Amino acid sequence: MENTVAAYAAQSETAPLAPFSITRRVPGSEDVELEILFCGVCHTDIHFARGEWGNSVYPMVPGHEIVGVVSAVGSEVSKFKVGDNVGVGCIVDSCRSCANCAEGEEQYCAGGTFTYNSPEKDGGVTFGGYSKKIVVDQNYVVSIPDGLPLDAAAPLLCAGITTYSPLRHFGVKTGTKVAVMGLGGLGHMGVKLAKAMGAHVTVLSHSAGKRTDAMALGADDFIATNDPEVFNTHAGQFELILNTVSAAHDLHGYLGLLKRDGRMVLLGIPEPSPLAAFPLVMQRRSLSGSLIGGIRETQEMLDFCGEHGITAEIEVIPMSGINEAYERMMKSDVRYRFVIDMATL
Amino acid sequence: MENTVAAYAAQSETAPLAPFSITRRVPGSEDVELEILFCGVCHTDIHFARGEWGNSVYPMVPGHEIVGVVSAVGSEVSKFKVGDNVGVGCIVDSCRSCANCAEGEEQYCAGGTFTYNSPEKDGGVTFGGYSKKIVVDQNYVVSIPDGLPLDAAAPLLCAGITTYSPLRHFGVKTGTKVAVMGLGGLGHMGVKLAKAMGAHVTVLSHSAGKRTDAMALGADDFIATNDPEVFNTHAGQFELILNTVSAAHDLHGYLGLLKRDGRMVLLGIPEPSPLAAFPLVMQRRSLSGSLIGGIRETQEMLDFCGEHGITAEIEVIPMSGINEAYERMMKSDVRYRFVIDMATL
Repeated sequence: MENTVAAYAAQSETAPLAPFSITRRVPGSEDVELEILFCGVCHTDIHFARGEWGNSVYPMVPGHEIVGVVSAVGSEVSKFKVGDNVGVGCIVDSCRSCANCAEGEEQYCAGGTFTYNSPEKDGGVTFGGYSKKIVVDQNYVVSIPDGLPLDAAAPLLCAGITTYSPLRHFGVKTGTKVAVMGLGGLGHMGVKLAKAMGAHVTVLSHSAGKRTDAMALGADDFIATNDPEVFNTHAGQFELILNTVSAAHDLHGYLGLLKRDGRMVLLGIPEPSPLAAFPLVMQRRSLSGSLIGGIRETQEMLDFCGEHGITAEIEVIPMSGINEAYERMMKSDVRYRFVIDMATL
Repeated sequence: MENTVAAYAAQSETAPLAPFSITRRVPGSEDVELEILFCGVCHTDIHFARGEWGNSVYPMVPGHEIVGVVSAVGSEVSKFKVGDNVGVGCIVDSCRSCANCAEGEEQYCAGGTFTYNSPEKDGGVTFGGYSKKIVVDQNYVVSIPDGLPLDAAAPLLCAGITTYSPLRHFGVKTGTKVAVMGLGGLGHMGVKLAKAMGAHVTVLSHSAGKRTDAMALGADDFIATNDPEVFNTHAGQFELILNTVSAAHDLHGYLGLLKRDGRMVLLGIPEPSPLAAFPLVMQRRSLSGSLIGGIRETQEMLDFCGEHGITAEIEVIPMSGINEAYERMMKSDVRYRFVIDMATL
């Protein structure tokens, strides 16, 4: 029995994305089939579609901020039923036996299957959410809480969990002094989530013009970092900096903004930049990284967003607008996330 | 009343250290005067004596691993009496009012006074332990436990606390998988201290020839890192890496040896090297720094060493041998710390 699905794919590093037809597996006993309603557009999609990380497989169907409605379930599926609003993020499977999986940290499983451009256990390569349907094991599907708009909820599946997880893991609570570097797709979610956790939130941005937006999103303060003097006047202020910048940048001034025992968490993958030991040693600061979040934590994040009414700021586009959207993202011309309306495919 | 003291000083970046006469203050009411018996030789002494960090003031008397006997005390001194065996490490004063000082983390006080090459509160620049006597406020003096040989205890005041503090701060306990990068003055103390805390200790060294020494010091395992294949075969093993290497080196392979949530702590100040986000992000690893330790923690470390009979492996030299010792240290030709016998000055 075939399960042919309309999609958009890149056929090479240089080809624009274009209509393409893929085959989804017939749902197995543990599988959930989603009719995809919306898919967010993550900067990672561009990296992969354009082969920037050297490991792209074509044709490629990007997309890992997927929201849809359950259209079929396998015989053993207990967690979801037809008609449920559900989401799929960056992971669609993992080994289920390693320590990471046992601890609910599937994102760090060495045998994990990512939602696109990833080898599947039974052969082939995964296709992502720029498509009408997807079939995923129920253990890698999450529920979208009632009351959240489905289009604006889509970016929670990557941008939301990518910022929520380090805020929780590194102990942000009422009064924690948090800074968010970069006010883009990740950064604007970081501001909303940190604020909802009770943190005192400062946005650090090169663009002084983002002050109004930052404050409207709930930030308590804004520092325009195009003036190097701010690295002196604000030294030693923050307990945690979420670094969402994906372009190469010098870390030292920003590290100096941390208090003793403060931590910067890298969420993007910029080009390597020189790092001196001095700002880490002198105040026992830490530089950490964090990768999305596990399935259990993704559900926790969605429930938190449901309670607090948090979704992304989005611009809904038709599927055919994806190539233009990529160009605008390269110029940071999006406030703050593109979401594809799959009814247009 | 004068207090003229024999010392050894560098008169410029390029001059060898040579005999010099300095003046110590007459002990104030809170001061302890030490007759210095031994002073360890730290690599930092070379950096400062040779002006390598650009902030050296000459003449300079290095030395911050000081052990001696109390020869006089001020009227208000309650913690020590004449004849006590005591130590002075890298700090001889701090502001005593900031959050760092209040929390016993004087080493991070912005107004701290280091033992040498540091502005004194009442003017002048501090002179270190390459001298016959030193006068220090009782709150910055520590006790040497009975039973520890005084010469081999001297390096505990810097090499000991520099490795003890991060092991404690970052939660090393029975069974923690610790690696020590570099088997020099710091590294060999790291092995002994981590082992005494119950950790499983692996030495990482470029020099396969250090295996025998590493095991003799108590290491459980040894990895020669001149074979790049070890970075694959040992990936994901360690919870904590103490990085004691002060020469420039690439961090990425070593970061890959850390488990998920593992941490590398930089203790040296190597030249900046390029850092990619990838090894931090992919397993939520951290790169931290740590600077010596506070006074309370230094006493705790000394008491721990007293209980466990831990001191440094040393080579005792006369004061006149200091320049040759520096040359040998530049070639890593010391097992594992030079200690100056001040009776020879």
